[in-house]
Amino acid sequence: MRKVYLDNAATTPLLPEVRQVMLPFLDEIFGNPSSLHDWGDTAREAVDAARVQVAQLIGAGAEEVIFTASGTESNNFAIKGLALAQQSKGKHVVVSAIEHFSVLHSARTLEKLGFELTLLPVDKQGVVDPEEVRRSLRKDTILVSVMQANGEVGTIEPIEEIAQITRENNVVFHTDAVATAGTIPVNVKELGVDALSLAGNQFYGPKGVGVLWVRKGVRIMPLLDGGVQEGGRRAGTENVPAIVGLGKAAEMAMANMAGRVAHLTPLRDRLLTELPAKIDHVVVSGHPRNRLPGNASFCVEFIEGESMLMLLNSQGVAVSSGSACTSRALKASHVLIAMGISHELAQGSLLFGFGLDNTTEDVDYVLEVLPPIVDRLRQMSPLYSKFIKTGKGGS
Amino acid sequence: MRKVYLDNAATTPLLPEVRQVMLPFLDEIFGNPSSLHDWGDTAREAVDAARVQVAQLIGAGAEEVIFTASGTESNNFAIKGLALAQQSKGKHVVVSAIEHFSVLHSARTLEKLGFELTLLPVDKQGVVDPEEVRRSLRKDTILVSVMQANGEVGTIEPIEEIAQITRENNVVFHTDAVATAGTIPVNVKELGVDALSLAGNQFYGPKGVGVLWVRKGVRIMPLLDGGVQEGGRRAGTENVPAIVGLGKAAEMAMANMAGRVAHLTPLRDRLLTELPAKIDHVVVSGHPRNRLPGNASFCVEFIEGESMLMLLNSQGVAVSSGSACTSRALKASHVLIAMGISHELAQGSLLFGFGLDNTTEDVDYVLEVLPPIVDRLRQMSPLYSKFIKTGKGGS
Repeated sequence: MRKVYLDNAATTPLLPEVRQVMLPFLDEIFGNPSSLHDWGDTAREAVDAARVQVAQLIGAGAEEVIFTASGTESNNFAIKGLALAQQSKGKHVVVSAIEHFSVLHSARTLEKLGFELTLLPVDKQGVVDPEEVRRSLRKDTILVSVMQANGEVGTIEPIEEIAQITRENNVVFHTDAVATAGTIPVNVKELGVDALSLAGNQFYGPKGVGVLWVRKGVRIMPLLDGGVQEGGRRAGTENVPAIVGLGKAAEMAMANMAGRVAHLTPLRDRLLTELPAKIDHVVVSGHPRNRLPGNASFCVEFIEGESMLMLLNSQGVAVSSGSACTSRALKASHVLIAMGISHELAQGSLLFGFGLDNTTEDVDYVLEVLPPIVDRLRQMSPLYSKFIKTGKGGS
Repeated sequence: MRKVYLDNAATTPLLPEVRQVMLPFLDEIFGNPSSLHDWGDTAREAVDAARVQVAQLIGAGAEEVIFTASGTESNNFAIKGLALAQQSKGKHVVVSAIEHFSVLHSARTLEKLGFELTLLPVDKQGVVDPEEVRRSLRKDTILVSVMQANGEVGTIEPIEEIAQITRENNVVFHTDAVATAGTIPVNVKELGVDALSLAGNQFYGPKGVGVLWVRKGVRIMPLLDGGVQEGGRRAGTENVPAIVGLGKAAEMAMANMAGRVAHLTPLRDRLLTELPAKIDHVVVSGHPRNRLPGNASFCVEFIEGESMLMLLNSQGVAVSSGSACTSRALKASHVLIAMGISHELAQGSLLFGFGLDNTTEDVDYVLEVLPPIVDRLRQMSPLYSKFIKTGKGGS
């Protein structure tokens, strides 16, 4: 059977070149970067080289790059660490309603610690209005966090405009760039942000490594206390093989970004156009143009996404229904709900995440196998029967 | 030149068998364990199998094993997460003065959050007296943390006796087993503890992975919020290759533990006996018998440990002076100071961490190259000149 991996939003495979640079660090180069001898020196130099590679990807200074173990850790560190470090100025935090749970739930934890939280609404395409950010700011606002793009629906946010507003108001601004860094151009100076999260496994680097970039001069409280690694900001023995792999992935992303975008965009657009043409009652979610090059997301009416996933999997196709981190929670996506999509429709969400290995044939295969799956599921759907009989319940 | 790695306390190399099981997870098996398709299933099954392997190593239930990214994260999670979850009962925390900085500094962070901290003293051999634990307990004590063994001086602590006392007093007891798990027998039921930290890179497993074991029924507040990974207790995409490697390392440690201890102990004892015989004014640190099988630690009078490290390194020998996490802080070890060793003497600390690859010849090589290094450094030492002239300043 044909095997088609279309879940690159959940995780990408490792590029062979990335794997290759990692292998010696699983073998003879095993030293602890903190050690004061040749074994340690070799490991430390490799970590420092990777730090430069990552810094170059995002237009930052190498000393501003803090290695973490995941995008989730980076987001936790940003939200909790930045808020706790600025709390003498105030205790009001603003995040968008469509943030990843690592941002949203970190903000909820701050609430338990006595902070106040404002959730920014989004429009039907998932866009945060910068004027909403302006309106949300108070004298005691110390931190705003809005993601650069939403991995579930693909919408890219107006980060530069938001940064303009936070800067005018002297409020620290963090952006979760886990879905964008390594995929589309991300430059911290052009964006004008103060802190930015990214993750290796989102752009053909390894799992187990992420980055929090914090602009020089911005104070942050460590989340992990202990040794003096990462300039005393994040303790723990460095995950050298993964860091080295992330560096290589960053270098390759920078070198090949335009070509990658040019490869992904037509695949995405083909599916965005053809799927609603082939299947009735399918709605594209997210922004029609300002969206991630590899993201094609839909809501299929009268069906649960889970069932489509299972049947697509039985045909060799891997996709997801919302973010991987929440897939096992089996709840309607908070992102779709915030976009004003009904709980019922949100249940039928389907996310295709294209990657470098995908081809036009993969899209055609989906267009071939998905319609009969949808037909079959709708025949078993009480909601669909009701709609056919009464014309009610459709969107 | 002969190359002798004697810094296994900082990090161990990967065993070839561990590397072997990891490689497919850097290649074709790249799915996100949270994904609901074949790619995700394969990854999830591998993580679950590793969870069982780790659970077996420490005599625990698999569902009690929480994967983290390091021993440092495990310790932060334990100290902060257990204290914050129990704070309705009180805000007093007790840790020993010789804990790793990931425990000590986490406890200091709790102080900033309004908790009270008691540091337990140790004797000259680094042993915590269980009766000191008993005396430290108050009505509002909610957490005690004492490491199972100190990685710097090798001393093994009376964890079972301490657990008896905390249990009688209904106080949660955490032990940092980073230096012991996978090296000497560790059984959470026999120890009687409520939570235990371990790290992969301490027993021939990979960097970038650790474990916090928390006994079923003991409440803990997540340190990393977000997705529902690890039973909702620790968010973030799982570091599958590292977790799989840790599982294999645990399995191998369990299968070969007696043989490993039998290999390490005579190497350690040879150095502990011969070094003070070969060099004047060398003091063994830590407990003479109740110590880690691979740990030989000393204080060399009138010299700074750093200089010895550098010159040993130039002879191909890797050792450390205190813990790797603090080696770049260049301060006298808080562990030695807590043991009543003077700042001057503590500066001359030297830690040999034996590993599976080491041989008697390695010990002999150290015994050959170290004495002339010490001689050379002492000739440049004002403290030593003074001692020779006056007989004062020695220990």
